Amino acid sequence: MLLLSAMPACVMKGSPMEQNFEAIERHQVTELNRILGQPFQVLDDGFVRVIDYMGADSAIVQAARVSYGAGTTRIRQDRTLIRYLMRHRHTSPLEMCEIKLHIRVPMDCWRQWIRHRTASVNEYSTRYSIAIDAAQSTKSGEWRLQAEKNRQGSDGTAEETLGRRLSRQEQELHSFARQVYNERIEAGIAREQARKDLPLSTYTEAYWKIDLSNLLHFLELRMEEHAQSEIRQYAGIIGHEIVRRWVPIVWEAFQDYHANAVTFSRQEQQILAALLKGSPEEARKIAISLNWMSDEEGQSRIHYEKLEFEEKLKKIGVVLPWK
Amino acid sequence: MLLLSAMPACVMKGSPMEQNFEAIERHQVTELNRILGQPFQVLDDGFVRVIDYMGADSAIVQAARVSYGAGTTRIRQDRTLIRYLMRHRHTSPLEMCEIKLHIRVPMDCWRQWIRHRTASVNEYSTRYSIAIDAAQSTKSGEWRLQAEKNRQGSDGTAEETLGRRLSRQEQELHSFARQVYNERIEAGIAREQARKDLPLSTYTEAYWKIDLSNLLHFLELRMEEHAQSEIRQYAGIIGHEIVRRWVPIVWEAFQDYHANAVTFSRQEQQILAALLKGSPEEARKIAISLNWMSDEEGQSRIHYEKLEFEEKLKKIGVVLPWK
Amino acid sequence: MLLLSAMPACVMKGSPMEQNFEAIERHQVTELNRILGQPFQVLDDGFVRVIDYMGADSAIVQAARVSYGAGTTRIRQDRTLIRYLMRHRHTSPLEMCEIKLHIRVPMDCWRQWIRHRTASVNEYSTRYSIAIDAAQSTKSGEWRLQAEKNRQGSDGTAEETLGRRLSRQEQELHSFARQVYNERIEAGIAREQARKDLPLSTYTEAYWKIDLSNLLHFLELRMEEHAQSEIRQYAGIIGHEIVRRWVPIVWEAFQDYHANAVTFSRQEQQILAALLKGSPEEARKIAISLNWMSDEEGQSRIHYEKLEFEEKLKKIGVVLPWK
Amino acid sequence: MLLLSAMPACVMKGSPMEQNFEAIERHQVTELNRILGQPFQVLDDGFVRVIDYMGADSAIVQAARVSYGAGTTRIRQDRTLIRYLMRHRHTSPLEMCEIKLHIRVPMDCWRQWIRHRTASVNEYSTRYSIAIDAAQSTKSGEWRLQAEKNRQGSDGTAEETLGRRLSRQEQELHSFARQVYNERIEAGIAREQARKDLPLSTYTEAYWKIDLSNLLHFLELRMEEHAQSEIRQYAGIIGHEIVRRWVPIVWEAFQDYHANAVTFSRQEQQILAALLKGSPEEARKIAISLNWMSDEEGQSRIHYEKLEFEEKLKKIGVVLPWK
Repeated sequence: MLLLSAMPACVMKGSPMEQNFEAIERHQVTELNRILGQPFQVLDDGFVRVIDYMGADSAIVQAARVSYGAGTTRIRQDRTLIRYLMRHRHTSPLEMCEIKLHIRVPMDCWRQWIRHRTASVNEYSTRYSIAIDAAQSTKSGEWRLQAEKNRQGSDGTAEETLGRRLSRQEQELHSFARQVYNERIEAGIAREQARKDLPLSTYTEAYWKIDLSNLLHFLELRMEEHAQSEIRQYAGIIGHEIVRRWVPIVWEAFQDYHANAVTFSRQEQQILAALLKGSPEEARKIAISLNWMSDEEGQSRIHYEKLEFEEKLKKIGVVLPWK
Repeated sequence: MLLLSAMPACVMKGSPMEQNFEAIERHQVTELNRILGQPFQVLDDGFVRVIDYMGADSAIVQAARVSYGAGTTRIRQDRTLIRYLMRHRHTSPLEMCEIKLHIRVPMDCWRQWIRHRTASVNEYSTRYSIAIDAAQSTKSGEWRLQAEKNRQGSDGTAEETLGRRLSRQEQELHSFARQVYNERIEAGIAREQARKDLPLSTYTEAYWKIDLSNLLHFLELRMEEHAQSEIRQYAGIIGHEIVRRWVPIVWEAFQDYHANAVTFSRQEQQILAALLKGSPEEARKIAISLNWMSDEEGQSRIHYEKLEFEEKLKKIGVVLPWK
Repeated sequence: MLLLSAMPACVMKGSPMEQNFEAIERHQVTELNRILGQPFQVLDDGFVRVIDYMGADSAIVQAARVSYGAGTTRIRQDRTLIRYLMRHRHTSPLEMCEIKLHIRVPMDCWRQWIRHRTASVNEYSTRYSIAIDAAQSTKSGEWRLQAEKNRQGSDGTAEETLGRRLSRQEQELHSFARQVYNERIEAGIAREQARKDLPLSTYTEAYWKIDLSNLLHFLELRMEEHAQSEIRQYAGIIGHEIVRRWVPIVWEAFQDYHANAVTFSRQEQQILAALLKGSPEEARKIAISLNWMSDEEGQSRIHYEKLEFEEKLKKIGVVLPWK
Repeated sequence: MLLLSAMPACVMKGSPMEQNFEAIERHQVTELNRILGQPFQVLDDGFVRVIDYMGADSAIVQAARVSYGAGTTRIRQDRTLIRYLMRHRHTSPLEMCEIKLHIRVPMDCWRQWIRHRTASVNEYSTRYSIAIDAAQSTKSGEWRLQAEKNRQGSDGTAEETLGRRLSRQEQELHSFARQVYNERIEAGIAREQARKDLPLSTYTEAYWKIDLSNLLHFLELRMEEHAQSEIRQYAGIIGHEIVRRWVPIVWEAFQDYHANAVTFSRQEQQILAALLKGSPEEARKIAISLNWMSDEEGQSRIHYEKLEFEEKLKKIGVVLPWK
């Protein structure tokens, strides 16, 4: 997992003191410099902006070689090395890159976001200042229905009439909550207490600083199809608009080896082997021996590992080995 | 800071393999076992309960000596050693103790709590389950006024008439918000979206697991007089009811060396030296040279370092060196 | 990834205050209690011992359900839930378990170990005490040869004559280094400086405390075949002798879903799909289009992704799609 | 502790979307740019070089205000704000700054360094490459004697004759150890095993990346007088040569409020109060009641809190209250 097999060695001189340490310059990424400070809109009133960054694809290569200036820009080899690191989850060189974003996000969404503990955060303080006068509004066509199969997800949207009623009601609630807040402030109530009944949809802002390794982990979890729609929209912007510009080689490898990878368990490998040997019948027998299905079709109860395996094959584009 | 000066050495045998490693038992704290699982009420509907723990005062001593069974229970020396560690912020042995709490807390308060990143958390999920049907209510006498001097605090409480009006209005808002939530759920809207406009005062629950070193840091910040009242109440319960029972020697040292300690800056030490030499006039001159006050009394603008110094002296119980 | 699809819901009562909070007891694991304090030998003079722990399989279930006492011990469902969590890398409930080990390990090996940053450590201090009088010795048959293919590994062992010479020389070096250390100490040189030339193979001891989630990550990296032999031996003992006793359901799932899982990249999935459809020729064409091999056999340069894919298939037990 | 009392508020507009988000540029520090890549020598063959950085004094102010572009460069106010943050250990804005160093350091010293877990590290690999052919040598006048009072420190240096003998012997050991290493390598032994008996004084190199808050914590512990001489030299260079150039306002405040601050315990404050009231006799009585000394002078055993208090007063420049 940690091996750097067959990568060209980088033997350091006995005394690097004798090395010709020339003055160096900071890693720059022109593509990212171009959008520095510009907001990408997310949801109805949120955004993400890059404030500053450190490192680039080249800084990762530099760290992996642990010897500054290991030759001229060997783009071909650099790409190979980065892809190697990504494939083998050799994450420490990725930590050498850091980015600082300015985000505006509903508190509800922020509650999920902040659970990623390896970032540095400075959030707008509603103890110290008046709360931002904006809450996330839902358009009539955006109300999502509870998923049946997945207790934690949504599936489809509500029909228009219901949607319109819910959006109207949402507006009323926002207005009332803001009015209550304002009256408390005007009555001299402390900001730290006046805010207590603001809706979770109220926008907040923060500086969020994180290294690339932890950012990719965040994106892997939050761009995933089961992540909640709102945070998935933020993650998508960060990935496709920002990380792609910042470290294009890493981003490409991330797509190939993580975001779109598929993992098979010990059990699934047995079935896979049977299928690869051209024996769907043996695959079926293994599935039965694993209790994934009963001997007689039709009456088998739902087995989640079986469902998940079927989904993986479907993703790869392969016909199911059984019915 | 890191020295373990003059502590009795603990030379390990050449080969601990030859040590008589007898079977050992887990550290137990009778006082804490007695309250395991019992809720301490906080606010109107919140609580804190101990679910499990690892370690005790003795485990800290064990880690500091890095040799199991370093003699019989030498309570006197153990106390001296722990106090030494606490005084010199030798925190790593404290990390050997761990505690797991079950808490119920308004989301507003939880937003501050969760900022302490070194804990493990499992929070009640409102994506997966119906939101807890309770929000923190404020009694008519509990509405706090905005502090004038401290942009981030409160000072005094609102008069009764105002308080009654605000509490009534709070109740209306809670009812309306819950009604909206319930209607969405009944209409089949996904729980993950239905919850978006719940008030920040809605209660949540979580398992919160943290080591003793980081817990003390949490308590130092959150039991402090400038922390917001709500979280201060939780911190107080955790400190006085739980940590005190769990690691009594550490808790006593924490009070002496951290919670009630006072720190003087380089500049303050100069003034302090003058005062200790019995020269209030020299102290005054130093303060003027530091720009803490002007030469002529009365017209000096507010200087925060001066105010803070005065507060420190007052805390110690000393008369101010200048009127 | 984060979904808890189709798991039975655990709706909490409106006011848990009304719940019948009975006194609870700490999670106990009889199998682990039985070996508490007993050293498992590793290498020639090292060991691992369990000192204390917190949590068990049941604590993970408890955290995942975030509601204490969610029914009687439903072992069948508990296993299903834990396996679900493990399969989907839902790691936060695993953090609810914590273990404290006492280890004795060569400093060289410890240098790799300590790179796992999420643990708490109290190491035996050679500033404060005399260094442990033991260094890891290599038997004549244990000298490993440098791997050709893998710059970072070993492959086979040296022949006996060479091995004997190296072991003898190693002994001389250990003796000389220890003699130098002793002379410095006797001459009154500070321990902190006297130790500077001890060999990296000198044993050290430490308390090492870590949560289960991070421990499994450690084991995944260090039990892996490319990890260095010495740390792999420690990891093996911790996994098979300790974690297996402590959290048997987690351990079984870890084997199935992590240690023995195999992951296919976006590119590999294309080839896999071709093979599953019974078209080795198409698989070959894809490999060529990916630059994994040249059109004409025999002259293709080594391509690491191709080699890795072949190894994965071999592991599954499938014949290579190309010669 | 966390209050931002009386700091000018920074109310954000209702919709920052309407703000005029102009393109921004990265924070630059000319003083630091000037020395980028240049090594500062430490010990006989070690160094520290800045490779890259993110942020500046202004970035801290920006984060503290959590609103980009809060006006023109108000240097006076910025300094006041930063000093306020530093005084009250309001550390999160400091985390917005990040620095990456390239260091060369003896492994012995690195063992202490690496214990600071909040940094990112890429170390030169002696599994993968030949070990650096240099070990830290001690000049005849640099051999430090074991401190009597402090079990963990040194005190004075050995006399010249002894020093010469020890340096000669050190050289012999280094030569022998390197010869053994070379013979192993030449015999084809794996690098990962050949290195096992290198002396701890062997140099290693690493990229070390850390945020400013954690770097200051590192410096506070490692620049302290009880830290081991070797790491103290590295910390001194990082502080005085690098941090001073990078964030001069923070560095000044760090000196005033942390490095040179003095903290008094609850007990010490009682004595201090008595002294400030001009009652050395009462101070004496309190000390006796605290068991710091016995009633009758001369026969009192050593009490560490008393010694530490005396040292603090001495540091402030005050005559001891008792003989």
